[in-house]
Amino acid sequence: MRSNNFVPCLLLLVSIQLYTQEIPEVDQDRLEDTIYMLAKHGMMENGETNRVAFSDADLQGRAYIISLMQVSGLEVSVDFAGNIIGKRKGRNSSMKPIGFGSHIDMVPNGGNYDGCVGSLAAIEVIRTLNEAGIKTEHPLEVFIFSNEEGGVMGSRALVGELKEDALGVVNSTGYSMREGINRLGGNADRIPEVERPEGSLAAFLELHIEQGGILDKEGLDIGVVEGIVGINWWDVRVSGFANHAGTTPMDLRKDALLAAAKFIIVVNEETLKVKGNQVGTVGRISALPGAPNVIPGEVQMSLEIRDLSSEKMDRLFKAMKMRAEAIEREMGVAFSFSPIDANPSPALTDPEIRKIIAEAAGELGLSTKNMQSGAGHDAQDMSRITPVGMIFVPSVNGISHSPKEYTSPEDMANGANVLLRAILKIDESW
Amino acid sequence: MRSNNFVPCLLLLVSIQLYTQEIPEVDQDRLEDTIYMLAKHGMMENGETNRVAFSDADLQGRAYIISLMQVSGLEVSVDFAGNIIGKRKGRNSSMKPIGFGSHIDMVPNGGNYDGCVGSLAAIEVIRTLNEAGIKTEHPLEVFIFSNEEGGVMGSRALVGELKEDALGVVNSTGYSMREGINRLGGNADRIPEVERPEGSLAAFLELHIEQGGILDKEGLDIGVVEGIVGINWWDVRVSGFANHAGTTPMDLRKDALLAAAKFIIVVNEETLKVKGNQVGTVGRISALPGAPNVIPGEVQMSLEIRDLSSEKMDRLFKAMKMRAEAIEREMGVAFSFSPIDANPSPALTDPEIRKIIAEAAGELGLSTKNMQSGAGHDAQDMSRITPVGMIFVPSVNGISHSPKEYTSPEDMANGANVLLRAILKIDESW
Repeated sequence: MRSNNFVPCLLLLVSIQLYTQEIPEVDQDRLEDTIYMLAKHGMMENGETNRVAFSDADLQGRAYIISLMQVSGLEVSVDFAGNIIGKRKGRNSSMKPIGFGSHIDMVPNGGNYDGCVGSLAAIEVIRTLNEAGIKTEHPLEVFIFSNEEGGVMGSRALVGELKEDALGVVNSTGYSMREGINRLGGNADRIPEVERPEGSLAAFLELHIEQGGILDKEGLDIGVVEGIVGINWWDVRVSGFANHAGTTPMDLRKDALLAAAKFIIVVNEETLKVKGNQVGTVGRISALPGAPNVIPGEVQMSLEIRDLSSEKMDRLFKAMKMRAEAIEREMGVAFSFSPIDANPSPALTDPEIRKIIAEAAGELGLSTKNMQSGAGHDAQDMSRITPVGMIFVPSVNGISHSPKEYTSPEDMANGANVLLRAILKIDESW
Repeated sequence: MRSNNFVPCLLLLVSIQLYTQEIPEVDQDRLEDTIYMLAKHGMMENGETNRVAFSDADLQGRAYIISLMQVSGLEVSVDFAGNIIGKRKGRNSSMKPIGFGSHIDMVPNGGNYDGCVGSLAAIEVIRTLNEAGIKTEHPLEVFIFSNEEGGVMGSRALVGELKEDALGVVNSTGYSMREGINRLGGNADRIPEVERPEGSLAAFLELHIEQGGILDKEGLDIGVVEGIVGINWWDVRVSGFANHAGTTPMDLRKDALLAAAKFIIVVNEETLKVKGNQVGTVGRISALPGAPNVIPGEVQMSLEIRDLSSEKMDRLFKAMKMRAEAIEREMGVAFSFSPIDANPSPALTDPEIRKIIAEAAGELGLSTKNMQSGAGHDAQDMSRITPVGMIFVPSVNGISHSPKEYTSPEDMANGANVLLRAILKIDESW
């Protein structure tokens, strides 16, 4: 009996030791240093960095990433869609790889943390594993996706969703996607070949800055992402009757802007009426003819609704539309709604991975909050082919897509440590 | 005793005869014909007329008016500001002239009744008096003011309010006021010489289309104008905080457009809260940065308030501003208000002339309504130097500044008959 119990007990001890003491931590200073090094690629005289996909700065930043991956012992390649992929062998080559990573391209006038934190933390995880002499069972694959900000280009290609008609889209560099892909060392004619079949990865993890202000405001360390919202978008047109603002009495007006104002308040009220994290926004508006002394006869505006549930988005829109009909009856105006873009459907993260991320954070003494991602990410596409998880770290004051974007070195290191532990937990249990 | 009473009785009889039977009526068909004749000057292939001040069409239209005035026996001159003035002698040359008239220039894409009805009715009144052999005690002066639509240029010059800095303003013809005045036969260097001193006219009357829909909607014949509204105009700026519409929860937003929408409703509510004919309008709006997926950080819009009472306009603005401050506190945004144009103060018409206009309409069996003019008119300037009166006739569907502008021949003739009687009443009693 005694000898029978010895081996499991020993394994248990080893296991306890591994997970309570021997899991190494990333080098915070080194991670921070790579953030600053990457930021130099595209840095302008005013100290801000401009590294839009396909730009010379993007090419330079990618060269830096590739060399960093190479010195980290990764087997690096660039696929036909321009994704940089670094492979690390596992003990068991028949196992599916665990993928993780993010992107390093920026929006125009963007910041140095969006995408970069997840990309450099992924490499830092590899370096930390190397130094600790940890070899995983599963192969590991680090993905630095191409042109995320221009429509999650690289990850869409990877899941077979980058279609021919998207390749003509030109970004602020003046290059089309087709030209840009070739500039990155890809091959726009061979995009279909990069598609990964469903189930070809064990999992995909992405660490990212929150880009919102919730963690920062609540003083929390780690966001466990429940899913990435879907986006519905409409062009809303309000037709009234333009007339002389001096000679038309208040009760004879069909003021399209007054009707639009009522609808903007409806959007806010209906969005707040139900529990949850849904958001509703009117971001663009124009009133015609647009003169101070003419009652607006027509208003054009945008309506955007985001949520994790398509059904809730539909319900919200219907409620807003019904109230628009009440405004129509009350004011004698007409509303029309044209859906103008079919953005990705909501993508839920894997519940098991969420639990793993929360456990990893807990072991590190970090506070967590389950939250949604209001912005799109490469993980959203990757969810089509593999279970995904996302780890958020705080954005100071919730500022993103701005040179003022900032995440502290401690928070970056916390995120990288959670990522490292989550990878090891998945490696152990899956 | 008997002989003493004879003369007054005879005068009374003559007077009764004059005012109940012998006052002639204008020739409706002839008036209508001159409207169509004038509309031909500037008529385009689509049948619409374009006769902006200083254009070739304006010059041609003015030549037609001058010839019409000449055949009507008027002594015609063009003053240094380009006003066409036709004089008819009175029995008593020491009396101040009774002035009346309007303008014949149009806004771009305007209609054939705004200004033209009052101008051609003034000439029709002269022709009718001629044919009836009526000679007034006061001299009569018909004014066809230059460039009314471009800032009541001619009437401003006449009251000494057309300043040097206005002369550089270029209208849609490409001519500056200075160039335009010279084109019209005026002399921009001698503008100050056209100024008429206060009290130099006995009165000034202007017949005009309503340009609003009140008379038409209520089925009334004649508007007795109580005054011409003043216009206060502000640039309103709302500052919030631009942020990602996906990652910024509803409760962490400072949405400048939502705040602006609340203010647009405030403008409507406060304008309707007090009795009267005041109007409040937001006609122009823009939201920055203006993308569907970004919460607007700033909104710029116009605010216009019109009323006959400066005091009421001030009170309304203060009430709106106070409620804007409540929106500021509620939403964490900031409002600023910059007055951007000091338009003419309200101008009240003369109470005695109002009574005379109402009596004249009553004698003709026409229904009347006391009303304000929401639009500016030459009479507004003229009120600085003489008692003024304005007669409105219905605009079908309240449409103006549009090729669809229309007033029926009957209504034009009604207005002209009221004008004729009002002139004779003033002539008799003043």
